[in-house]
Amino acid sequence: MAKLKFQMSMSLDGYVAGPNQSLEHPLGEGGMALHGWAFATRTFCEMQGRDGGETGLDDDQAAAWNRDVGAFVMGRNMFGPVRGEWPDDSWRGWWGDEPPYHAPVFVLTHHAREPLAMEGGTTFHFVTDGIESALEQARAAAGDRDVSIGGGASTVQQYLRARLVDEMRLHVVPVLLGRGERLFDGVGDALDDFDCVEFVSSPAAAHLTYRRKGG
Amino acid sequence: MAKLKFQMSMSLDGYVAGPNQSLEHPLGEGGMALHGWAFATRTFCEMQGRDGGETGLDDDQAAAWNRDVGAFVMGRNMFGPVRGEWPDDSWRGWWGDEPPYHAPVFVLTHHAREPLAMEGGTTFHFVTDGIESALEQARAAAGDRDVSIGGGASTVQQYLRARLVDEMRLHVVPVLLGRGERLFDGVGDALDDFDCVEFVSSPAAAHLTYRRKGG
Repeated sequence: MAKLKFQMSMSLDGYVAGPNQSLEHPLGEGGMALHGWAFATRTFCEMQGRDGGETGLDDDQAAAWNRDVGAFVMGRNMFGPVRGEWPDDSWRGWWGDEPPYHAPVFVLTHHAREPLAMEGGTTFHFVTDGIESALEQARAAAGDRDVSIGGGASTVQQYLRARLVDEMRLHVVPVLLGRGERLFDGVGDALDDFDCVEFVSSPAAAHLTYRRKGG
Repeated sequence: MAKLKFQMSMSLDGYVAGPNQSLEHPLGEGGMALHGWAFATRTFCEMQGRDGGETGLDDDQAAAWNRDVGAFVMGRNMFGPVRGEWPDDSWRGWWGDEPPYHAPVFVLTHHAREPLAMEGGTTFHFVTDGIESALEQARAAAGDRDVSIGGGASTVQQYLRARLVDEMRLHVVPVLLGRGERLFDGVGDALDDFDCVEFVSSPAAAHLTYRRKGG
């Protein structure tokens, strides 16, 4: 069966984004430092339409981010900095005209909005009736492919608490953020469900993959 | 100048001990799993008076735990499970007649007790007037050697908040504990003071060393 999975870069002290997300700091203050390992990879350069980038272990990990993924779910703050009612339809995501998803993306929000079709096959759907509905719609869109949680921490925590996550891939970097969005807060005993199935490291990051027991 | 330092094994989700520390679970429930990488090393076997154990990267890391250390400070829960007033002098630590410290150990407690000399050069001194006094006494005892914080999380946090720590060495293992004693809680912006100076990994653990900036 198709999996629900996610992958995130995390500071040594457990943060996946810095504090005070804003237009200037989409990943929160200091959050860019979590992704240095990925920025250097060929996969990331290709996503940006650039040549170059390194192959090897980090690139293999980066390339997993959309492998076998047929649809995404994400929290509203992952989609943008707008809070409350949508003032208009002008916010179209952080990623420019052609977001890197190339697939349907189901955005969790309390505020309805028409679907937003972007270039390259990404369509943002706005889901107002909760995480299970978003997952159901994403699964239907993904067919026999996986669904990936695009972030952020709060959305991942909700799916973890609901015991719906099958696989998670963490990229731990030697950064101490000290503040921001912590991934593994408020998930109760949901982490008891997982086994580590891969643990490899480059000089830039430790990469760990966990899978639901018996999954 | 001699350093104040510590090293701790930590789960991927940030715990350095499991919950419900007790006689049966000195490291808290599940806490033993944090130390598997160290148990396999020659250094640990030697500490236990046994032959064998592996050399290599993990052993190099394990061997650092008492290198250049002239004295230790530790929290009372690191010394034992007794809470409140000492009922008598029968509790002599978790480590049997010959603790592995072979140096003066200054135990933070609210309850006075006479020093306790053990075999092999370890003497436990009980300090009731706070972390700075304990450090001062430990520094005096250590001479030109370093002082190491033996644990646990709460004691490390107190020294971090007081900006007294010069070096920390973390051993991150691919374990998710989900509960217990978290190392990097309640330390405010004290982590801003540190740079990562080493990041190496074995199949069993990622080892990261941080040093105070400009230190």
